[in-house]
Amino acid sequence: MKVNGTHYRTIWLSADDPTTVEIIDQRQLPHRFVVVPLRSVEDSFTAIKDMLVRGAGLIGATAGYGMYLTALQADDHSILDEMARAGAYLKSARPTARNLGWAIDRVLAAVAGHDAPEAIRETSLATAVAIADEDAEFCRLIGEHGKALIQEIASSKPADPVNILTHCNAGWLAFVDYGSATAPIYAARDAGIDLHVWVDETRPWNQGSRLTCWELGQEGVNHTLITDNAGGHLMQHGLVDLVLVGSDRTTRTGDVANKIGTYLKALSARDNNIPFYVALPSSTFDWQLAHGTDIEIEIRSGDEITTIAGLAKDGTIESVKLAPDGVEAANYGFDVTPSRLVNGLITERGIVAAEEAAIVELFTDKITDTRSLHVTR
Amino acid sequence: MKVNGTHYRTIWLSADDPTTVEIIDQRQLPHRFVVVPLRSVEDSFTAIKDMLVRGAGLIGATAGYGMYLTALQADDHSILDEMARAGAYLKSARPTARNLGWAIDRVLAAVAGHDAPEAIRETSLATAVAIADEDAEFCRLIGEHGKALIQEIASSKPADPVNILTHCNAGWLAFVDYGSATAPIYAARDAGIDLHVWVDETRPWNQGSRLTCWELGQEGVNHTLITDNAGGHLMQHGLVDLVLVGSDRTTRTGDVANKIGTYLKALSARDNNIPFYVALPSSTFDWQLAHGTDIEIEIRSGDEITTIAGLAKDGTIESVKLAPDGVEAANYGFDVTPSRLVNGLITERGIVAAEEAAIVELFTDKITDTRSLHVTR
Repeated sequence: MKVNGTHYRTIWLSADDPTTVEIIDQRQLPHRFVVVPLRSVEDSFTAIKDMLVRGAGLIGATAGYGMYLTALQADDHSILDEMARAGAYLKSARPTARNLGWAIDRVLAAVAGHDAPEAIRETSLATAVAIADEDAEFCRLIGEHGKALIQEIASSKPADPVNILTHCNAGWLAFVDYGSATAPIYAARDAGIDLHVWVDETRPWNQGSRLTCWELGQEGVNHTLITDNAGGHLMQHGLVDLVLVGSDRTTRTGDVANKIGTYLKALSARDNNIPFYVALPSSTFDWQLAHGTDIEIEIRSGDEITTIAGLAKDGTIESVKLAPDGVEAANYGFDVTPSRLVNGLITERGIVAAEEAAIVELFTDKITDTRSLHVTR
Repeated sequence: MKVNGTHYRTIWLSADDPTTVEIIDQRQLPHRFVVVPLRSVEDSFTAIKDMLVRGAGLIGATAGYGMYLTALQADDHSILDEMARAGAYLKSARPTARNLGWAIDRVLAAVAGHDAPEAIRETSLATAVAIADEDAEFCRLIGEHGKALIQEIASSKPADPVNILTHCNAGWLAFVDYGSATAPIYAARDAGIDLHVWVDETRPWNQGSRLTCWELGQEGVNHTLITDNAGGHLMQHGLVDLVLVGSDRTTRTGDVANKIGTYLKALSARDNNIPFYVALPSSTFDWQLAHGTDIEIEIRSGDEITTIAGLAKDGTIESVKLAPDGVEAANYGFDVTPSRLVNGLITERGIVAAEEAAIVELFTDKITDTRSLHVTR
């Protein structure tokens, strides 16, 4: 996707130095575009934990490269042990994010058959690259499948733009490229469909106002920023045709953990007969879980609510306090939208009902593969 | 209510100068407690429009005093004309706020029978004081009636605190004293009931994090700040026993306009079988309206979303930018919760079902009185 007209992915191997991975520091967007190097598993852990990178696919890709960096720096005689430890360490960074464990387990499975350190290092890199490439390709396919939904709405109201509401950033910044929820939007835009996106601010980290507005602006997609509180009102007044969000972990029954507040939008969509779709690559499925209530919900620091950073008048990024001294704040990172409120899941293999039978049928091969890896959660 | 242990109302006639009204500048809370004088109708208009004062009852009381300040400064020969003009001017400050027009019409009706300028001035002041006193007393009564609801929940779970979720600030800062949604909380606290309040941040103006947290802190009520996005998750997990909010305009059929986002909490409460109550003095009813969809929704500047003011490290209040340059933001101030989602209305006369027949029966005398005034909206 484009930044000031230049094509970028969200993570890449340094062109100058194959022992360095580069990412965009998303904490500084939209005010500054800063590329940061990752040179160790500790760098990767911090990038995930402190949200220099975030979003389902990008967390997975960063974890994949983090495993490669571990392999690079490990002693020859203990390389597999060090990678196993690094995997457990990385997995602890963001408990709700399914792609994190999935990517780590994929690298560990790929190297498990090797003894030679160089083969392990090469396989780690090849797997990290494959994870990233597949993430981008799956998101591109999600875009193609989801485009049909938008086209159908567009043909029902040819005089007006299709109004899509999205929550958080399930954009290209959340993946390696294209995004999940934004992929159908970009594909529809490319197909010449007139559309407009309502962007939820997404407190407390403001992924919407900071990231989604920025990337839609870079891509020239019409959009309007709203508070998280506003979506219900817009839906009551016919101003939303489709709700399109991403997912951080999805059960095989179609329950969807996504950024806190998603459930409220799903309730409102249902109350107003508006289709609510979730876009996700299959790497986001947790095949072990039958119930959304079993998903661990990350609780982050209350400081993310009581203070906020923004661009001050002097051009510095300043943090200001929003609440009284000493107030207690509870910062739940995600909520679970039950499958009954989800009209469908947009995956790389097509749109599937949020129902166990349909999901399992579409991804039987993946479930078998993944179970054999003893995926942890 | 108390500020650093001293009793305050939110609006009062200056003790030193009966031609000056004093208010608390709520834009500066919780960081600074600043009392501001109002000396003219223009001051009153600005205080309402720019939200130095806000909240159903306090907007009404400020408008009442604004009419008194008009009378005070008007020429003797044109006093009633000037008051009529001032009334229309003040009403334009906040279109959704029902108490605004109600208070202005009440002053105009009170002075309508008088010719002598001094009698008009005295009547204006007496009416403004009556509006304020009645607001405080009605909120006190709302507290008594609402306390029973909390007591009932408390007796069903004696080992744990009653968890109440509130949105925006329908606290004493929103009225002259006690508050509407907070009045039952204060009354229950006084009755020794163990309770805890989840405070919605309430974007974009952060009435929750800035005002509700501050006033609950001053009153020693246990509370935790959350984002507006979090309420659904808390309700799904049994962490909310009661949702208690205020209203800015309520139809005679029980539809409730309140701060944007209220509707989303009502949907979530219903989805999780949690009682959702709205506390309001009868001055908030708009007897002319049968449908919530007829309520005009105020749209405020998008700057309230794209920038935010907070306390900087150097102790100044600084405004920082949160979104990309030039982003469009839509700032709807209120939404309407349909009566079907409201378990009951807590009024000064008791708790009433959100149904036209029950509401009209309880307030028949007020409806007649108010209709005879040709209340505008």
